[in-house]
Amino acid sequence: MLGEFMENFSQAREINLMRIKEAKDNGRKVVGIYCTYCPQELILAAGAIPVGLCGMNENPIAAAEETLPRNLCPLIKSSYGFAVTDTCPFFHFSDLIIGETTCDGKKKMFEIMQDIKPVHVMQLPHLSNAPASFALWVEEIRRLKSRLEEELDVTISDAEIWRAIEMINQEKRAIKAMFDLNQADPPRLTGMEMLTASWSRSFSSDKGEMIANLNNLVDEVGAQPAKGKAKAARVLLTGCPVGLGTEKVIRLTEDLGAYIVAMENCSGYKTLELQADPAGSDPIVALAEKYLAIPC
Amino acid sequence: MLGEFMENFSQAREINLMRIKEAKDNGRKVVGIYCTYCPQELILAAGAIPVGLCGMNENPIAAAEETLPRNLCPLIKSSYGFAVTDTCPFFHFSDLIIGETTCDGKKKMFEIMQDIKPVHVMQLPHLSNAPASFALWVEEIRRLKSRLEEELDVTISDAEIWRAIEMINQEKRAIKAMFDLNQADPPRLTGMEMLTASWSRSFSSDKGEMIANLNNLVDEVGAQPAKGKAKAARVLLTGCPVGLGTEKVIRLTEDLGAYIVAMENCSGYKTLELQADPAGSDPIVALAEKYLAIPC
Repeated sequence: MLGEFMENFSQAREINLMRIKEAKDNGRKVVGIYCTYCPQELILAAGAIPVGLCGMNENPIAAAEETLPRNLCPLIKSSYGFAVTDTCPFFHFSDLIIGETTCDGKKKMFEIMQDIKPVHVMQLPHLSNAPASFALWVEEIRRLKSRLEEELDVTISDAEIWRAIEMINQEKRAIKAMFDLNQADPPRLTGMEMLTASWSRSFSSDKGEMIANLNNLVDEVGAQPAKGKAKAARVLLTGCPVGLGTEKVIRLTEDLGAYIVAMENCSGYKTLELQADPAGSDPIVALAEKYLAIPC
Repeated sequence: MLGEFMENFSQAREINLMRIKEAKDNGRKVVGIYCTYCPQELILAAGAIPVGLCGMNENPIAAAEETLPRNLCPLIKSSYGFAVTDTCPFFHFSDLIIGETTCDGKKKMFEIMQDIKPVHVMQLPHLSNAPASFALWVEEIRRLKSRLEEELDVTISDAEIWRAIEMINQEKRAIKAMFDLNQADPPRLTGMEMLTASWSRSFSSDKGEMIANLNNLVDEVGAQPAKGKAKAARVLLTGCPVGLGTEKVIRLTEDLGAYIVAMENCSGYKTLELQADPAGSDPIVALAEKYLAIPC
C-alpha cells in the first residue's frame, strides 16, 4: 500500500521534467535555486517554477575540477559540474539561477557560473541576530524581487506573494506532518521513503498537487495499523544536506537494522516549522523574518 | 644617508616591543588587529596601542596544522600558529584581538582563537555598494566601540575619535608621500626599503613619532639628488598582503635588476588615499564611509 503512494514521489523527478519542458514550451519560466535561504515564494509569485539544483551526484565532479580547485567540497564541484557539462535538465531549463553567499567556495562558483546562465547572488548576513542584519536581509529580498521582475519580465504584486506564502506554509506543514509520522515506534516510514518524498518536492512543477500527494500519504499511513517490527536503534540524521544520490548513510544505517527516524538538516526539521506570518502588512518583511530564522 | 633614516624603521619592531612592554607595565592596553578593515582610530581613541598581527612567518604553521586543516592558506595558519604557540610577543601583549569575516578560514580561526584571548569579530558586508551594507557597517563599528569600552574599561568620546582620525589621516598622508617618491625614474627607494618603512608602522607604540620619522624620510630623500641608475623594468606589486617575512618576491625581483616601484595591496596604494572626513557630525559614520571604501 505504501509503495503505491511512494511511487507518486519516486517518479516525481522524471514526470516533472516532462511537465517542465512542456511548461517551458508554453512560455513559462523556470528559476533554479541551491539553498533553503532562497525565498521561493517570490519565484512562485512571479509565475515561475522554482527547481532545486543542489549537486548530489559525483559524475560531473571531474569536469568541474578543470576550473575549480580540487579541494573544494563535492557539493560545489558537483553543482558546477552539472552546469558546465549541461547534464542537469533542471539547470538546462532554468532562465535564472539564484545563489547565496553561503561560503567562499559557492561565492566564487556563482561568479564563474555567470558565464553560463544569468545568476543572482543573495548576500547573507554573517550574523542573524543584529538589527542591521535584518535590515540588510529585507533589502536583499527586495533586490531579488526586482531582479526576478526584470529577468522574467513580470510585475510581482503583494497579493501574489501572500498567495505564495500560504502555499509554501501549507507545503511545510504537509512535509512536517509526514516527518512527524516517525515519532511512532516503530517508525511508519523508512529513511529512504522519507528522503524520497521530501527531496522530490524540489522538482515539482505543481505545488498544489504535491501538497495533496503528501497529505494523502500522511492520511493513508496514519490510518494503517502500526507494523509490529522489532525494537531497533532510532537514529537522527543531521549535518550537511542529503538528497537522492547522497543517501549512502541512510542506506547503510538501515541495512544494519537501525531506523533513520528523523532528518535535521536544512531540508529537514531545521526549517520545517518556519512559517511566514500571513498576518503582516508587508509580505517581504514576513519573508525576511522567516528566512532569517533559519538556524544554519 | 638613506641607511640612517631607514634604521629608524628596520629596528622599529624590537624598539617598540620594549616600549609596549613598558607601557603594559604602566597599565596601558594593547589591541591586536589583523586586517586593514579594522578602524584602528577607535583603538587609539580608547587610549590603547593598536598592533598589527598578520602572520608572515612559516615557523608556527606546523603547530597550527594540529588544529586547522592543512589546506587553509598559510597566512591564517601562521596567524593561528603564532597565537597557539605564544611565540608572537605582540599577540602575547594584546588584551583584545579584533578579527573580521574576511573569509571562511579566518571566521573559523577566530572562533577557535577565543579559547586563547578575547576576540571580537567584525561582520563585513559581502557587497560594499548597497545602502543596507552601509547601515550594517555603521552598526558594526558602533558594536566594536562598545566592545572596546567594555573590554578596556574606558569611555570613548567623539572628541577622542576625531583626534585619532586626524592622526591616522596624517599617517596615511605620510606613507603615501613616501610611496610617491618612487614615481621618480629611477625610483628613490628600493622595494625592501618601502616595505620596511610601511610595514613597521604596524608595530609602533607612538604614532606621532612614527609620522615624524616618515616625514623626515620623505624630506631627506626628496632633497637628495636623483641617483643616476641605469634604466630598469619598473614593477607594480599587487595581490595579497606582503610583510617582512614574506618579501621573497620583492627580493627576487630586485636581485634580477628590476625595480619594485609601487605596492598596491591592502597596506599599499589600495588604502593610502582613504581619509576619514574630519568635517562630519558623527565620527563613527566618517569611519564607516572610509573603511567601506576599501576596494578589497
